[in-house]
Amino acid sequence: MGNLTEKITIEEQRQQFLGLANKTYFNFGGQGTMPQASLDAIVNTHQYIQKVGPFSGQINSWLQSETALLRKAIAEELKTTADRITLTENVTAGCNIALWGIQWQPGDRILMTDCEHPGIIATVNEIARRFAVKVEICPILDTLNQGDPVAVIQQYLTPETRLVVISHLLWNTGQVLPLKEIVTACHSYSHSKQQVKVLVDAAQSVGSLDLNLPESAVDYYAFTGHKWLCGPAGVGGLYVSESAFAELHPTFIGWRGVDIDTQGQPQNWKSDGQKYEVATSAYPEYQGLQAAISIHQQWGTSTQRYQRIRQLSQYLWFALTQLPEVSCLKKSPPEAGLVSFQIPDKNHLQIVNHLETQGFFLRTIAYPDCIRACVHYMSLTQEIDSLVAAISLAISQV
Amino acid sequence: MGNLTEKITIEEQRQQFLGLANKTYFNFGGQGTMPQASLDAIVNTHQYIQKVGPFSGQINSWLQSETALLRKAIAEELKTTADRITLTENVTAGCNIALWGIQWQPGDRILMTDCEHPGIIATVNEIARRFAVKVEICPILDTLNQGDPVAVIQQYLTPETRLVVISHLLWNTGQVLPLKEIVTACHSYSHSKQQVKVLVDAAQSVGSLDLNLPESAVDYYAFTGHKWLCGPAGVGGLYVSESAFAELHPTFIGWRGVDIDTQGQPQNWKSDGQKYEVATSAYPEYQGLQAAISIHQQWGTSTQRYQRIRQLSQYLWFALTQLPEVSCLKKSPPEAGLVSFQIPDKNHLQIVNHLETQGFFLRTIAYPDCIRACVHYMSLTQEIDSLVAAISLAISQV
Repeated sequence: MGNLTEKITIEEQRQQFLGLANKTYFNFGGQGTMPQASLDAIVNTHQYIQKVGPFSGQINSWLQSETALLRKAIAEELKTTADRITLTENVTAGCNIALWGIQWQPGDRILMTDCEHPGIIATVNEIARRFAVKVEICPILDTLNQGDPVAVIQQYLTPETRLVVISHLLWNTGQVLPLKEIVTACHSYSHSKQQVKVLVDAAQSVGSLDLNLPESAVDYYAFTGHKWLCGPAGVGGLYVSESAFAELHPTFIGWRGVDIDTQGQPQNWKSDGQKYEVATSAYPEYQGLQAAISIHQQWGTSTQRYQRIRQLSQYLWFALTQLPEVSCLKKSPPEAGLVSFQIPDKNHLQIVNHLETQGFFLRTIAYPDCIRACVHYMSLTQEIDSLVAAISLAISQV
Repeated sequence: MGNLTEKITIEEQRQQFLGLANKTYFNFGGQGTMPQASLDAIVNTHQYIQKVGPFSGQINSWLQSETALLRKAIAEELKTTADRITLTENVTAGCNIALWGIQWQPGDRILMTDCEHPGIIATVNEIARRFAVKVEICPILDTLNQGDPVAVIQQYLTPETRLVVISHLLWNTGQVLPLKEIVTACHSYSHSKQQVKVLVDAAQSVGSLDLNLPESAVDYYAFTGHKWLCGPAGVGGLYVSESAFAELHPTFIGWRGVDIDTQGQPQNWKSDGQKYEVATSAYPEYQGLQAAISIHQQWGTSTQRYQRIRQLSQYLWFALTQLPEVSCLKKSPPEAGLVSFQIPDKNHLQIVNHLETQGFFLRTIAYPDCIRACVHYMSLTQEIDSLVAAISLAISQV
């Protein structure tokens, strides 16, 4: 692994991350540890903005070109082009852009899995209320260990279904859904008047899976930079496919999304992903995310990073299955960096809080009630060994 | 001026702002110069998050209490309470929350002034398209030097008008609209089935005018922290009055706006301004804004800062009126920090670009075609003197 000119070892790579130095960290799915280079970039950008601006012709044009570079860096990670990328504040904003951008008609249906994040559920419920849209929930949780998620989704499609909302990598169970197959099933569903579109909450998949969005044919793919990409909180994005772009209207709107004429009047939407961008953002954090992506790419390709994540999560999963008190939700080795497990006789939050005092960072999930541990490619087998030992000890102590 | 225990001179105060050191800055209405204390707070917060988190029980609860402190600091500047404040990414997001949160019916009308920002115009136009709402524009620009803006707005109210969109301090001409009188006129308009609400784009007024929002009875007041408050870009907010709160629904929705039950399901909206907050933000920048507000408050009250802004802008306005080639848009002394002027025989952008190379930072405005100079309370009469001399020279050179 590592780049071609000079291999960077995992130990060398870990030196870049302040957050890894003083603890054993398994919450990458909550927030990634940010590299020092990102903080340096943030500070340098703030200072540069104060020196050359903060508001000036020079700084405004510099920010525009740096913002374009961030869209390009993100696009490379998704195997797409910069014109398909919208920068947002977070993954939730990206989901909202897609959800509110569809011109809903009374009677339309949204199909959503039973594993979605509460923020997305709340948005879908409000859309249902406002536009008399019907929401259906399909049981994907049950397909973690048997059954076919594609078939489940297909069974729930109706002629009124306009949108299917899924996560690519489920935040609660760590299951990876077969994106391309789901999109194909939705796009080829022949009983619908309009093509069924697919919105993906990609909070857990961007920066962890090996992605090729154009190949998947997904319509809307919303993500964040502060989890697996290890950028600063407050920067995320949305991919909208070329074919879904024209009919998806912006909802929250500002100067960044429109072309403005010489009279100061908005003329038309921007012709690329900027169409859905709104207004002033924390631009120094954009530089922080760019630096984080660059750090990852210096170590290895997204394929190499995903392979190592998977090796490590399988290592963790196997070690957990050896603890008699622990029950992993997934009965076969994980396909990505999230490993969720239950300790049937214990209060999960007490275990997690106790582990945090010992320097081990994990989180609880409400549904299904479990503990989630995340490994990244920077994780070490030694860390996993000590985590498993700490869990074993915590079970006897808490 | 200054606080009671120990007066901070303007020269001492200016030392805190890196961006004032190497130039003569008149673009506070574009972006304020950020104090060093804000940058320190941003860096310290990033480092603290990496040390204690980034995602942990401890850091999540700390971020929650710090975020509450920012709402409180902002609320004090507006003479309201923290529960009325929603934190947003920028002023435009706040305007969008109000605009999309109204349950529009076909035939409803929005009344907007002819001096609003293109981003807001674009949002209003899209709402008109989606919900068959009618938009009317009232001629407020013409009231800069004569006439009564309240009377103009009153003339344009109809039984179908549900919302009036204004700026408190017009970004193009620097005119201050009589907020309380406009709100009273709208709220007491008796031909409407529902009370006419007032949305204010407060991009220029928060941090420059001496505000008391509850006294004004305004319904929605959207603002940013990165202009006159001199915080980092990417943090703004929205005030929603107590009486307008219940019926304004969230549109872009995420985990920050809802209470979540033990099964991970969203239960209800948060009962305060958090109702309209969405998801993960650039929290370190929140600390930056808190630090900036604190720096201002250490120097003087909002009344004291506004008085000095007004003295300085009147000084600038008077000096500009002495240049025969320059025509100020406002024919009487300005009431706030924005001074807009024309140089009839010149290309304004060329003048502004030339001044930027000389270290003087101003901007052009498209409608009406003019140059805008902003003075803050940290500005100096010497800076204004050199600006006026530089403009005079530029006129002869460009």
